[in-house]
Amino acid sequence: MLSEFSLISRYFDRPPRANGNAELGIGDDCALLRTAPGMLTAISSDMLVEGRHFFAGADPRLLGHKSLAVNLSDLAAMGAQPLGFTLALALPAADEAWLAPFADGLFALADRHGCELIGGDTTRGPLTICITIFGAVPPGQALRRDAARPGDDIWVSGSLGDARLALAGYRNELALDAADLAAAAVRMHAPEPRVALGLALRGLAHAAIDISDGFAGDLAHILERSAVGATVDVDALPAGSMLARQPQPLRRQYALAGGDDYELCITAPRSRRADVQAAAAHVGCAMTLVGTIDASPGLRLVDHLGAPLALQAASFDHFAMPPS
Amino acid sequence: MLSEFSLISRYFDRPPRANGNAELGIGDDCALLRTAPGMLTAISSDMLVEGRHFFAGADPRLLGHKSLAVNLSDLAAMGAQPLGFTLALALPAADEAWLAPFADGLFALADRHGCELIGGDTTRGPLTICITIFGAVPPGQALRRDAARPGDDIWVSGSLGDARLALAGYRNELALDAADLAAAAVRMHAPEPRVALGLALRGLAHAAIDISDGFAGDLAHILERSAVGATVDVDALPAGSMLARQPQPLRRQYALAGGDDYELCITAPRSRRADVQAAAAHVGCAMTLVGTIDASPGLRLVDHLGAPLALQAASFDHFAMPPS
Repeated sequence: MLSEFSLISRYFDRPPRANGNAELGIGDDCALLRTAPGMLTAISSDMLVEGRHFFAGADPRLLGHKSLAVNLSDLAAMGAQPLGFTLALALPAADEAWLAPFADGLFALADRHGCELIGGDTTRGPLTICITIFGAVPPGQALRRDAARPGDDIWVSGSLGDARLALAGYRNELALDAADLAAAAVRMHAPEPRVALGLALRGLAHAAIDISDGFAGDLAHILERSAVGATVDVDALPAGSMLARQPQPLRRQYALAGGDDYELCITAPRSRRADVQAAAAHVGCAMTLVGTIDASPGLRLVDHLGAPLALQAASFDHFAMPPS
Repeated sequence: MLSEFSLISRYFDRPPRANGNAELGIGDDCALLRTAPGMLTAISSDMLVEGRHFFAGADPRLLGHKSLAVNLSDLAAMGAQPLGFTLALALPAADEAWLAPFADGLFALADRHGCELIGGDTTRGPLTICITIFGAVPPGQALRRDAARPGDDIWVSGSLGDARLALAGYRNELALDAADLAAAAVRMHAPEPRVALGLALRGLAHAAIDISDGFAGDLAHILERSAVGATVDVDALPAGSMLARQPQPLRRQYALAGGDDYELCITAPRSRRADVQAAAAHVGCAMTLVGTIDASPGLRLVDHLGAPLALQAASFDHFAMPPS
């Protein structure tokens, strides 16, 4: 068993990049990561379990991509520059037909972000993927959840809800034609973490979070940690191109509470509105103004005319579950 | 589900220690770890799966201890000072009767080493524990596997084989009386990572590895990475107090190839022999001289008279499997 799983780990064993971030990579008791002088190391860890975070039999190439994407998205939401990651992998068997495309999907995304695999562990067990990722951020410039201030604009990157729409299609909750489902599924399976946007927003945005569980639920984390409230125009939320063709109630629900989008929700001073738009344009990512941070606690949802909506964020909890 | 598992993660949510190593702990997209100027960050990740690395129904307090101990042992083998760790946990259910003692065992060991829990993830799934640990080590002082040199002494800390003896008892491979089994089991369930020893050996030892799979197999990693060989006096290997009472063949087998000891195997220049002994005495840990690094590849086993033993390290592979 040992030798079989040693072989697997060698599958992922690439030498540290010359002049890269690792002084020592896979193959010793620890990896050794360099930190630029004065920088903080941003660290996030996510565990993905088959049958809960992804379907049994999921395409291993997409799974390799998504496993790293959700962690890169955490770095993006912190304004951190990716440095490297560790991969701990439990597998029912050493199946190279699974490992080869998984590694391909993983490394393709990692290489695009200069994020090196520096260590990890492989073992036999129910399919479980645990990635811990490392990034660099200057002290005082991290985009923290507790930094929203009353009067801040609330912005959302890209578009929301298509990943949730794909899930509804897979679950036969909605009848989608095959082409629409395929288009929406790209958002579910191959999210693009907003790393460049997070870096561009350093020193500009106040608070940030990545939207993994749904906009309303994730914004609520900012509100709670910052001890503020918010008013959000539900009709301003940027619906994905597939979701935009659905009826208004579904559009509102999925944009508010659909999970798995991996967009950024940020707050920034109203005085920096033009700067936020310029930063977004610079990295080629749409940013939409969707609301305002208030001193008064709670999340107030309004329509495009400013009329209060009876919808409460809490009522969306059952949509906010990760696909499982 | 979300709220249930949010509650679990709050179980582990302790505020960052004042003047500790984390500028930001659990509760944001990332933790923020401080690195002292000029230091490298040593990083190791281990995944423990129920039924493979520990028995179903294992005492959660001991499991909390051991999950962190194996990672601290990796830092020890690098000569790194523990800073913090992340915990990713998949659990079949949110069972506080399991969580409370698990957290107790985990934090008791963490606190003794000043190692803070700075982030992580909890999810429903087959019981799986993934810890990624961070330590600090000055450039050029890490105890690497590739640093052994011909003529080096080979040393082993503490004693070997009692953890393997306990496993044999549990498996009914050997008849041990209850008191002996209980004494040996402490070594299996509650290993003490040699963190202080690893730090004391900085700048003194050449190569180091922690003995998790068995002495011969782990020394082989040093030999391979350093492109050297070794001669080891099997009878010099320090047997644990329970193992020492077993017949010679078993004593030799388990000392050579028993897993789960979490002692350190190091190499150091012969000229520094007194310094190694002084460093070991300073931290209150026995160190035993067991062999010599040779220029010629391969592991040569001899008895206390220097006579070659027919035993080959490879023949111990079936003992080298982790308990599963």
